[in-house]
Amino acid sequence: MTDRFSFTLNATSGKARGGVIATPRGEIRTPAFMPVGTAGTVKAMLPESVAATGADILLGNTYHLMLRPTAERIARLGGLHRFMNWSGPILTDSGGFQVMSLAELRKLTEEGVTFRSHIDGSRHMLSPERSMEIQRLLGSDIVMCFDECPALPASDEDVARATRLSMRWAERSKAAFGDRPGHALFGIQQGGVTRELRAESAERLREIGFDGYAVGGLAVGEGQEAMFGVLDYAPDMLPRDRPRYLMGVGKPDDIVGAVARGIDMMDCVLPSRSGRTGQAFTRRGVVNIKNARHADDPRPLDEDCTCPACRGYSRAYLHHVFRAGEIISSMLLTWHNLHYYQDLMAGMREAIAQDRFAEFEAAFHAARSEGDIPPP
Amino acid sequence: MTDRFSFTLNATSGKARGGVIATPRGEIRTPAFMPVGTAGTVKAMLPESVAATGADILLGNTYHLMLRPTAERIARLGGLHRFMNWSGPILTDSGGFQVMSLAELRKLTEEGVTFRSHIDGSRHMLSPERSMEIQRLLGSDIVMCFDECPALPASDEDVARATRLSMRWAERSKAAFGDRPGHALFGIQQGGVTRELRAESAERLREIGFDGYAVGGLAVGEGQEAMFGVLDYAPDMLPRDRPRYLMGVGKPDDIVGAVARGIDMMDCVLPSRSGRTGQAFTRRGVVNIKNARHADDPRPLDEDCTCPACRGYSRAYLHHVFRAGEIISSMLLTWHNLHYYQDLMAGMREAIAQDRFAEFEAAFHAARSEGDIPPP
Repeated sequence: MTDRFSFTLNATSGKARGGVIATPRGEIRTPAFMPVGTAGTVKAMLPESVAATGADILLGNTYHLMLRPTAERIARLGGLHRFMNWSGPILTDSGGFQVMSLAELRKLTEEGVTFRSHIDGSRHMLSPERSMEIQRLLGSDIVMCFDECPALPASDEDVARATRLSMRWAERSKAAFGDRPGHALFGIQQGGVTRELRAESAERLREIGFDGYAVGGLAVGEGQEAMFGVLDYAPDMLPRDRPRYLMGVGKPDDIVGAVARGIDMMDCVLPSRSGRTGQAFTRRGVVNIKNARHADDPRPLDEDCTCPACRGYSRAYLHHVFRAGEIISSMLLTWHNLHYYQDLMAGMREAIAQDRFAEFEAAFHAARSEGDIPPP
Repeated sequence: MTDRFSFTLNATSGKARGGVIATPRGEIRTPAFMPVGTAGTVKAMLPESVAATGADILLGNTYHLMLRPTAERIARLGGLHRFMNWSGPILTDSGGFQVMSLAELRKLTEEGVTFRSHIDGSRHMLSPERSMEIQRLLGSDIVMCFDECPALPASDEDVARATRLSMRWAERSKAAFGDRPGHALFGIQQGGVTRELRAESAERLREIGFDGYAVGGLAVGEGQEAMFGVLDYAPDMLPRDRPRYLMGVGKPDDIVGAVARGIDMMDCVLPSRSGRTGQAFTRRGVVNIKNARHADDPRPLDEDCTCPACRGYSRAYLHHVFRAGEIISSMLLTWHNLHYYQDLMAGMREAIAQDRFAEFEAAFHAARSEGDIPPP
């Protein structure tokens, strides 16, 4: 076990990268998918079950946790790891994205953002300094810079203004983070879909210097084609010897496409949220378990999947418990989806190690194009 | 593994009885508490977790399952055990109780009950013959006679009428059940809180002859004192060499009092339902986790409990996830409650084996009277 944060790039296949992030709380195999534990829980999962899917690291949300139960309370209780019973690494976002999408009566200044809680209307403030303090109180292993992420479409002027503000905030984040061996601070590249702004942002971040770099400001409504367009060049602007994190992505094909373009880490609520709404991800695409065609189907969701939902239950059962509104429906489908995502990451890591990522990608798309097998 | 149903009485302590019910699907240690898996799931639990609490047998609800997904569908899919991924014994109720408490537009005749589904308004019928057919389709190991259970308070005339109808239905249930080695049919004693009717009902059931006998018509609003009043004599009217099942009971002190009066089996939704509403059962009584006093409490629900909720989480965490409406709150509190109930049963079985049930009962009440330990 290391006492420092480090990244080792072990293999490449095309632009796809395989490596290991070492932290005092354990290793993160990359490319890595991070399940989201918004409010101190990956919804409908016990943490040991999340680990059983193959997840090495979780994401926690600063915005949600600062409002409830508060970062100070979590710190008094021994930190987020102990609080939520997860001993592995945790990455926390800065709160910047959610304050813009969830909070009420936001007011943005050079200093930071004041807002009211969407839960109880209480007044709060986030700034680079406050975000660093909260993430320190939580005990986060990978801390994200506080930034402003404008929703797309936005005018070029708005994107440029937000990008430059985010870079000034990145510098303040670095200063406030200080020197914390074993903990990492990641900068976040902004710039929307504008190549020049992406380059300017990347250059500024490299000057400041971070332990890792995120590609921010994507997956905010621009569509996959535009996102891949940015990912065709944006990751290359970031240091090769540091992990690259694409925030808030995504669907399975987004993830494969992002890894193909040099991304090492991703997070998304999609597998867990979809599990709660009856959508299951499989090699052959999405299965909507609420569809009546599954009512008498004795087969598992995916014959080749080894997750508990597929080993123990028929589609007919999953259909029944979803229709009946039973909690086990969310539990089993979330588990399946997280298992599928981690299987996908493991498959990509293996393909990269063997330098056959292009074949992997082709097989991935071929299986999906076949579609779900019809009921017997 | 036996291929027949049998009951062995191994020990007594006062009126309390310790024994084993053997079935082709496994043994049931008595006194036994049966978690309720209403619609094919013990809510918020995976079946392997239910087994891990120490449960030997589950209860399934004929009324719910006949409406959704239907008994015929479950039979096509291989029976209820395979459907819900539970390989141990399952007891199913007859549907009689729930049709009276949940269904709409009920019409009761000598033949049976016609009603409309509370889910979609569809028309259905239950009779002794149809109830036996449904329980056979489900693959139930312990089948209950179809009966009418009037809610208390009811007039003496109503209770007498319902009791005699239930006895005629018991005879029809026995005839319809037929000869099914390895499967058991239980008669249900009725008679409300009237000793003479209880005796009449027991005598009639003994004449018909069953593999086990339930004490029915209690826990329907009469209160613990009245229930214990009936339990002071009713179980003694039933054959000593057959298991005695008290239906729908109850709170921990109901259960201890019932075992003290010669009951071998019980079922209740209380531990699982309470788990979903933030109530936890402990040796020292009920803890309402939503209470603000727990918000900063680093202690587990119960220092002596070995369930996952108590081993891994603070009261502060459980309070937080309950307040935040997170599914893990229901998962952990349900698991804790079922674990507590099974611990209670194991403690009673051990005390009976050592003929010190009275001491166990005294210690049980003493711990509860101390109440919850205040926060530090």
